[in-house]
Amino acid sequence: MKIDVLGAGAMGCLFGALLSRANEVRLVDPNRAKLKTLKDRGVTVLEPDGRSFTAFPGLRTPEDGSGGPPDLLLIFVKSAAEKEALAAVGPTLGPDTALLTLQNGMGHEKAMGEIAPPERILLGATQHNASLQSVGTVRHGGAGSTQLGALAGNGELARAAAAAFTAAGIETAVSADVRAVIWRKLFMNASASALTGVFRCPLGDVAENSHIWKLCRALIGEAVAVAKADGFDFDEGEIAGEIYGHLVRSKGAITSVYADLEAGRRTEVDAITGAVADLGRKLGVRVPVSETVAEIIRAMEERKQRNGSSI
Amino acid sequence: MKIDVLGAGAMGCLFGALLSRANEVRLVDPNRAKLKTLKDRGVTVLEPDGRSFTAFPGLRTPEDGSGGPPDLLLIFVKSAAEKEALAAVGPTLGPDTALLTLQNGMGHEKAMGEIAPPERILLGATQHNASLQSVGTVRHGGAGSTQLGALAGNGELARAAAAAFTAAGIETAVSADVRAVIWRKLFMNASASALTGVFRCPLGDVAENSHIWKLCRALIGEAVAVAKADGFDFDEGEIAGEIYGHLVRSKGAITSVYADLEAGRRTEVDAITGAVADLGRKLGVRVPVSETVAEIIRAMEERKQRNGSSI
Repeated sequence: MKIDVLGAGAMGCLFGALLSRANEVRLVDPNRAKLKTLKDRGVTVLEPDGRSFTAFPGLRTPEDGSGGPPDLLLIFVKSAAEKEALAAVGPTLGPDTALLTLQNGMGHEKAMGEIAPPERILLGATQHNASLQSVGTVRHGGAGSTQLGALAGNGELARAAAAAFTAAGIETAVSADVRAVIWRKLFMNASASALTGVFRCPLGDVAENSHIWKLCRALIGEAVAVAKADGFDFDEGEIAGEIYGHLVRSKGAITSVYADLEAGRRTEVDAITGAVADLGRKLGVRVPVSETVAEIIRAMEERKQRNGSSI
Repeated sequence: MKIDVLGAGAMGCLFGALLSRANEVRLVDPNRAKLKTLKDRGVTVLEPDGRSFTAFPGLRTPEDGSGGPPDLLLIFVKSAAEKEALAAVGPTLGPDTALLTLQNGMGHEKAMGEIAPPERILLGATQHNASLQSVGTVRHGGAGSTQLGALAGNGELARAAAAAFTAAGIETAVSADVRAVIWRKLFMNASASALTGVFRCPLGDVAENSHIWKLCRALIGEAVAVAKADGFDFDEGEIAGEIYGHLVRSKGAITSVYADLEAGRRTEVDAITGAVADLGRKLGVRVPVSETVAEIIRAMEERKQRNGSSI
């Protein structure tokens, strides 16, 4: 399959390298200096088991249409930059190009919908995670399942994409109800991940500190209530239990929200806790804790931009 | 007037030294090592204008009843330790001893009510502030007005105390509605002061950071709504304007909430934002932002106790 991966960050490089084992892959990024480095060195993936491999996917800028449109555009762009990046790459896509995002959070279909019709939009979630060691060198933090599905029920497209992923060694299943899959992952990110930003702590602290866990339960409760109003009926206790277990298992894990705040970058707050708050307001569900926590993270982003100091 | 000052911290030492210019003052503190130092060195007040003076007030432990009961017990004990401290000093008070607290926050009359009848309880607020340089040496941060009044309308007692304070150079007025005075000071502490703890920042940042100010407005709104349900009708816009002006004027000021968190001490959260949340719940007023911010500060206190590290 001809796959363009938009955004040569940690996840983009990881999936670009993995997918290129069985597909024709190009990494798409506006940063020419980065593209030059990737051209020279390729993308090296450091696997959890100590092994590593280097791939040399194709490279292009978002505006560069030479080489023709891809069958699939895989989007790994931070929600803050998503709209702009999609607008730039839009003209280089063909009438049959499918769009897929595996980014955390909710609402990506809105930005995608501005450059493609619903029947060409795929959504999903993955348990793979990666962190950037240096440009083009990514540490593969952990593998796991990947699920995707069609926004407008185009199962054909979803199966084709899943097959291309699985052929490249990325175990991928098609979900008939992908938005439920996204909600499940969002519960974790909108609650515990956001709080690791507020307290600048690893995941484990959210479960260990009785007051942070109380805040986490409040965020989970609001998110489950918003999901219910959105037509997805989850058991709050069960979700909380799953999350608690995950926090204990990955005690020392550093989330991207925390890492972004430490590095002075924009976080994905608007796609996680902020998205739950926005949808809650829209659906008439009370989401005061989500609103407060999202605002605290935005304040931390603004402080970083203002004074550069650690928050 | 015979005045015992309970709690030889920054504010206790400041008022003990000032009051001893025109009254018979004893500092009451359970820490014998501290009392020994104060006996040798006295209490030195470093005034904002660079001048300083040293006073040698009397000293005693809370349990020590020798020397007889005071006319007035002035309470400067952190809300977390208040109940225990009052229980210890209670037996050394006489049937006519008046109790007065100028501590920040709300609800002190409850603890005071356990050792004295309402008609002997005075409440108040002061604009004086102080920070401890070393044991017995306090930096007088700034002067200002002091207001006090009787919980059960015993104006006689309030006027006598105010006269003793004013005679010692502490400009003090009697307020017919002291709880309104306390609410006014609480609006500032329950909103901006609490947020300086959450973001570990000086007061000015609360006004400068658009997201922190948005959170501050939400806290002010909840506090004013709780005050209204409590029978005190304040103009939210006017209160917010006053607070904003204060934040800009005392840009670099470090609050006790921030200082306590940095030092790993308990904060006064339960007497400020936490007290607004508790009273709001009791009166059926929605206080989700106050609850969330109070819980975040409690989480920071618990982290300090747990790992000693900076939050």
